[in-house]
Amino acid sequence: VLGLSADLEAEHDLETLRSSFDDVVAARGGEPAARRRAAEIAAAFLGFDVAGRERFFAVLADEYGVDRDVVDVAVEALDRADDSERNEAERRLRLALEPQRERLFRRFIGAESGLAFLVQLRADLLALNLADDNSRQLDIEMRRLLDQWFDIGLLTLTRITWESPASLLEKLVEYEAIHKITSWHDLRNRLGPDRRCFAFQHPALPDDLLIFVEVALTRGLADNIADLIDPSVVDSDVLAADTAIFYSISNCQAGLAGVRLGDFLIKRVVAELRTELVGIENFATLSPIPGFRVWLETTVADGVILDGAEGEFGEVDDPQRALELLETALADDCWFSRPELLVSIEPLLRKLCAYYLLKVRRGVRAADPVANFHLSNGAKIERLLFLANPARSGQERSLGMMVNYRYEPERIEENHDEYVRNGVIAASSHLEDLF
Amino acid sequence: VLGLSADLEAEHDLETLRSSFDDVVAARGGEPAARRRAAEIAAAFLGFDVAGRERFFAVLADEYGVDRDVVDVAVEALDRADDSERNEAERRLRLALEPQRERLFRRFIGAESGLAFLVQLRADLLALNLADDNSRQLDIEMRRLLDQWFDIGLLTLTRITWESPASLLEKLVEYEAIHKITSWHDLRNRLGPDRRCFAFQHPALPDDLLIFVEVALTRGLADNIADLIDPSVVDSDVLAADTAIFYSISNCQAGLAGVRLGDFLIKRVVAELRTELVGIENFATLSPIPGFRVWLETTVADGVILDGAEGEFGEVDDPQRALELLETALADDCWFSRPELLVSIEPLLRKLCAYYLLKVRRGVRAADPVANFHLSNGAKIERLLFLANPARSGQERSLGMMVNYRYEPERIEENHDEYVRNGVIAASSHLEDLF
Amino acid sequence: VLGLSADLEAEHDLETLRSSFDDVVAARGGEPAARRRAAEIAAAFLGFDVAGRERFFAVLADEYGVDRDVVDVAVEALDRADDSERNEAERRLRLALEPQRERLFRRFIGAESGLAFLVQLRADLLALNLADDNSRQLDIEMRRLLDQWFDIGLLTLTRITWESPASLLEKLVEYEAIHKITSWHDLRNRLGPDRRCFAFQHPALPDDLLIFVEVALTRGLADNIADLIDPSVVDSDVLAADTAIFYSISNCQAGLAGVRLGDFLIKRVVAELRTELVGIENFATLSPIPGFRVWLETTVADGVILDGAEGEFGEVDDPQRALELLETALADDCWFSRPELLVSIEPLLRKLCAYYLLKVRRGVRAADPVANFHLSNGAKIERLLFLANPARSGQERSLGMMVNYRYEPERIEENHDEYVRNGVIAASSHLEDLF
Amino acid sequence: VLGLSADLEAEHDLETLRSSFDDVVAARGGEPAARRRAAEIAAAFLGFDVAGRERFFAVLADEYGVDRDVVDVAVEALDRADDSERNEAERRLRLALEPQRERLFRRFIGAESGLAFLVQLRADLLALNLADDNSRQLDIEMRRLLDQWFDIGLLTLTRITWESPASLLEKLVEYEAIHKITSWHDLRNRLGPDRRCFAFQHPALPDDLLIFVEVALTRGLADNIADLIDPSVVDSDVLAADTAIFYSISNCQAGLAGVRLGDFLIKRVVAELRTELVGIENFATLSPIPGFRVWLETTVADGVILDGAEGEFGEVDDPQRALELLETALADDCWFSRPELLVSIEPLLRKLCAYYLLKVRRGVRAADPVANFHLSNGAKIERLLFLANPARSGQERSLGMMVNYRYEPERIEENHDEYVRNGVIAASSHLEDLF
Repeated sequence: VLGLSADLEAEHDLETLRSSFDDVVAARGGEPAARRRAAEIAAAFLGFDVAGRERFFAVLADEYGVDRDVVDVAVEALDRADDSERNEAERRLRLALEPQRERLFRRFIGAESGLAFLVQLRADLLALNLADDNSRQLDIEMRRLLDQWFDIGLLTLTRITWESPASLLEKLVEYEAIHKITSWHDLRNRLGPDRRCFAFQHPALPDDLLIFVEVALTRGLADNIADLIDPSVVDSDVLAADTAIFYSISNCQAGLAGVRLGDFLIKRVVAELRTELVGIENFATLSPIPGFRVWLETTVADGVILDGAEGEFGEVDDPQRALELLETALADDCWFSRPELLVSIEPLLRKLCAYYLLKVRRGVRAADPVANFHLSNGAKIERLLFLANPARSGQERSLGMMVNYRYEPERIEENHDEYVRNGVIAASSHLEDLF
Repeated sequence: VLGLSADLEAEHDLETLRSSFDDVVAARGGEPAARRRAAEIAAAFLGFDVAGRERFFAVLADEYGVDRDVVDVAVEALDRADDSERNEAERRLRLALEPQRERLFRRFIGAESGLAFLVQLRADLLALNLADDNSRQLDIEMRRLLDQWFDIGLLTLTRITWESPASLLEKLVEYEAIHKITSWHDLRNRLGPDRRCFAFQHPALPDDLLIFVEVALTRGLADNIADLIDPSVVDSDVLAADTAIFYSISNCQAGLAGVRLGDFLIKRVVAELRTELVGIENFATLSPIPGFRVWLETTVADGVILDGAEGEFGEVDDPQRALELLETALADDCWFSRPELLVSIEPLLRKLCAYYLLKVRRGVRAADPVANFHLSNGAKIERLLFLANPARSGQERSLGMMVNYRYEPERIEENHDEYVRNGVIAASSHLEDLF
Repeated sequence: VLGLSADLEAEHDLETLRSSFDDVVAARGGEPAARRRAAEIAAAFLGFDVAGRERFFAVLADEYGVDRDVVDVAVEALDRADDSERNEAERRLRLALEPQRERLFRRFIGAESGLAFLVQLRADLLALNLADDNSRQLDIEMRRLLDQWFDIGLLTLTRITWESPASLLEKLVEYEAIHKITSWHDLRNRLGPDRRCFAFQHPALPDDLLIFVEVALTRGLADNIADLIDPSVVDSDVLAADTAIFYSISNCQAGLAGVRLGDFLIKRVVAELRTELVGIENFATLSPIPGFRVWLETTVADGVILDGAEGEFGEVDDPQRALELLETALADDCWFSRPELLVSIEPLLRKLCAYYLLKVRRGVRAADPVANFHLSNGAKIERLLFLANPARSGQERSLGMMVNYRYEPERIEENHDEYVRNGVIAASSHLEDLF
Repeated sequence: VLGLSADLEAEHDLETLRSSFDDVVAARGGEPAARRRAAEIAAAFLGFDVAGRERFFAVLADEYGVDRDVVDVAVEALDRADDSERNEAERRLRLALEPQRERLFRRFIGAESGLAFLVQLRADLLALNLADDNSRQLDIEMRRLLDQWFDIGLLTLTRITWESPASLLEKLVEYEAIHKITSWHDLRNRLGPDRRCFAFQHPALPDDLLIFVEVALTRGLADNIADLIDPSVVDSDVLAADTAIFYSISNCQAGLAGVRLGDFLIKRVVAELRTELVGIENFATLSPIPGFRVWLETTVADGVILDGAEGEFGEVDDPQRALELLETALADDCWFSRPELLVSIEPLLRKLCAYYLLKVRRGVRAADPVANFHLSNGAKIERLLFLANPARSGQERSLGMMVNYRYEPERIEENHDEYVRNGVIAASSHLEDLF
């Protein structure tokens, strides 16, 4: 409708865009009309090429932010305000600090598929990787708005089964990021009788997923990802299961980066499973350690292992030998098929992995992002798993190592506080015994 | 769980309350835990008596607002900020201006029935009618938050029929404010084949209604409310209908006072009906004039009619006679059963009513609230209806007068702008001819 | 479409009807066309007056039965058939014995609302109360067909709640035959948290009910109908309930008279409740005794009580006094408000009621229809309840007496067989002790 | 529960089976109990091996048929019956002719999944291919019962889309018999925006399909199957479509062989499409000719073509040459890739195919089963399509030839009658011009 060229190159394109923005911000023709106009802008945006999108965001970031003159006036008024005027002066100043584009964004929401568009818009903004301060500011604002609209109180928890619409299952296949789903046969196994799959959805995006988790019901904690994702492995007996293993959790929307959904999802699913299946007593993950290999490579390259071995690592008898073993393993994608290497490297890898998870930090937080996610949620490091994922992806991330993080409902809050405030990591004693 | 007394009288009650507030604001134990704690506060609130609620709101209003010291620091930082720091300084100041209780409110949302609780909370706040500035501020903030959470983009339009759940229909009966539904027989008539009823619902309040409108499909504009609400009147022939009459629109939630829903509802329903029923060409209301009688009484009491008659009212031949007629009608609930009075008073009432709607203003807006609502939505005053509602409610509001406001889709935006910006009221020519 | 007059009086009306019947029976134009034509006949029928319906049924009953000549030929063929031909000859004879109208009925089914029409057709047939043999035969055939189409395996069990569509609840009000539902307030109480209501529905009649039962969840066996149907009585605590009381069971379709649904319904509901509510251990009815008063009146009139008292009734000391008491009670609608009468008549009424239920038979079956229904289902007479229904309906049926029939899942089959085959009535010992 | 061995070899197995049959037939323990017992028999049956199933059917076929003595008595009674007794005597004879196993079958229905079991039972019976008369009789009876239970009036028409449950779509893949679905990508194409897919389902088998049809919306009649089943072909523009092509119709249940569903399905779908899509004016199939190649081979082998060519085929100039061409094509799977052969054989194949469809009969019916199916439904042969299915399946059935059968709603009934009664085949004139 707006008739803009795809690259927004012509000056009159930008004029048209500004004038549309102004109409929407001023709600010309009334609120519903403004929202309809917002929908036109959204439709136009979807036709833009990269250059067009960059220019679109530049206008938004540079011209539709806070009106500084208005802010200055409001600050002055606040300074002058006596006690009885202070409330009102604060309110006005706050209003003045609301960027104009925020009103634009709010009006997108009321348009058909408006919320989906905003998520898309932020995904596009992130993809452009714009480094200037105004763009960064724009992103912060958008995330803040999305934080509100995707508040957990507005989401619905959906159980996904083999009876779900194919159009939704298709999304599952598309979004599964950790352990790729390779066929519908594979998918069916992930939704078998010994599995559960739950997703958060937003009522205004009924055909899409926000985040989902795949759960296996097992007897004892699973120590091996292959058993869970291999469709030819026989289903476990659900009635005998005592454990729910969260073996894959995937964010679905790039535009919602930074919006917290995962911790709520895990806790809601734990509650759900406790109601459905009275026999389930353990809730744990089978998680990758995405940062381990890179850290190990640096460590080995630095020769740090030698010093560490003597000091913190304790009893690695021969640091030089340890270094050689690690170099061999890091250099050979199939190291684990060499029995003698397997035997000698296992205690070493366990030790180093424990060290990595417990000691290597970014600030008070664990440096490993998955570890940080689960520890922030109040989980505890339960067990290190050697060769739990010998597949390529496992090799590349962590030389095949994986972890069980355990969620003990009655300990979650304390764990969370200790970790977030004091950097204390909850871990089972046998892990701490490793060094 | 919190174990507070109903009146919150004891000091330690208030201490417990503050400490709970602090936990939630600081998200102690993690986000999900904080939301659970918010739910406990909500549960406690529902047990408070009036005194308890007043104290609860007092703590919220006086102690959990903006932290002024933080604001002052942020203002100073803004003053000192150079160009490259300005964005960040503004963002921080904006954050500092966010009252602490807002974080509390946001965490209610994540709790079971959290959104419903917030609506209830505001309804209770409004009911207490607290006059101090902090309470007023609190109300403004709550409305702003509710404005966001009840954004039209998050609502669903529900068609309500005789096949709807009884539990929902029960709400319809409870909430119908304009033309009371007196029985299920009456209700069934409102949902008959020649009717449509649409409501906005919020996905997080699936069992409740926010606002609804009742529509009758008629041949020509209805001029009479009795025909529409009397169950014994035969249904009209839907296939022959060319008009949709919006004869009742009711807000359902006291806690959402001031949150705009009505204009969106009317426009969505117009769009819906155009899709379903191709024969419908006219969209109009059959509306009460709630402020007419009071204005008329004052006018008559002031004797203003005399002067007005000579000037603006034009041709009322005998102002003294007019005044007497009006006094008689205002004094007698059954004036309309006196034929001679009927005949002589009709032109007078029409003229005065037109004057009231077109000329009596609050600022640039029409003084009559219903008129202001429809005119703001872009409707036009189509027709005045004499004796259209002779029932008690009609007498008390407007001596039986009603109005058809007409919605012409292609004129709505211009009407809206002209009215809102310039105070120009769209009206059919025969109305303007009245004086 | 067929253009028949409402009374089918003209000869050419009957000719048109016959020709339509013939088309349908012969499936002229193909099967779908024949079904469409059947729908036209159905539509025409609904326009007939009583005379028209009588003539319609007369044609069906007298002209579209078994073709006797064909039967005779098939019988002869059977007589002549050798062993290898016998199967085929039997099959052909069976086919020959299928009345032509059966093919007509089968084709109604395929028409829109065809099954509903057949149920209506039989209801109309029964209402006409036609005494001739052909009509009786027609009714037997229709019932047999309906028996098949309403086979329990094709029905769905629906739980009815306050969330059910008003259009369905309306049917509940219409069909409740035992304890009338007088208002929506009353209805809401019947569907309260301490109640359950289940109905059988047929997938081809989704908006209608076939039979439904109302259940109250109580602590101990209910001994009093008023507590259950009075909306002002406080709901019981469902968590404390140990008993499900089936206090009302209503057939909804006159056209399905004789089609067995009730015994399946009770058993399905028992199974349903056992799954939902683990605390429920007792399943019993609170049932009327529709035949008691009439039997008692006859008995009293005959003076039989005197003899009985000496013999079977055992210890009624003074038969003459007993007779007087009963005569007084039978003559006074408010006998139960006379305390002295209450005390003296209670043991007498209990004894006579036990006698009526246990000894008065029609063949081997209990003469009381409700008793026969529950005993055939395998229930046991648990308890007689004096003054359990003092309302008018209770007085008229049974001088206020009611019964608890108990369903013990593990005894049902044996009870059924003993009763149906040997006339043995299962009853609690205290009942048998009464005489 | 019954504890039978899988092959039913032991005599006491058969005794247990007979005794269970007897319990069910006699409804021991009441009707619900009998149905529960029937479910046990069903469960046992599913554990039988081939030998066990043969013995099971042998008992059913030989021992639970009609009781001949009872029949003979009833026949005698009929002979003796006077007019007033005749109705009743016929009814009793009919009852006597009902095989005992029918009561058994009816009680299966009431069991959980009972109807599905009966369908399975018949599929197993058919698979065993038992040739004796009693078994044949058993099959006829089962089909008759299934005919009633799968009456069109009890079925629901389901539109299947990409939003349907994966568990249902999986069935579609399994059951598609004509043009195999090779992947979910392929499946998605069959359910694209320019397609429609409808199935009949039975309410008692909600997770299964009975029969389904795939429809393509096209501009003009499709002349080529590859365009429809190749996922890489671009979707047609639905808004421009004027034709609905029924290009695949598959029966899903072997146990329902002989139960007529297809003609109803086509007609219901035509009605459905007419309502949804006003632009669709033509309804036609793109159908295989399964019997053509076999007929052609025989014809060629017999040298009949020579005579035919001179007589009926008219103008095939050189019969010897024709014979050679056909022999070449029949011998070479890739004949159609030889351009010179293509040109010369096309008119010949068209002629012979027209002859095959129009002249080769089984009784008055067309010999080709697909032709007979559509002609019986009232369709007309619209067009022969040369090389419309060059894929292997097309070669094997019909040397790549296909047909468009056209359904003209207003001609269907007449076509049906003319065909079924008089053997007149409706065909477009250009087809009849071919010879």
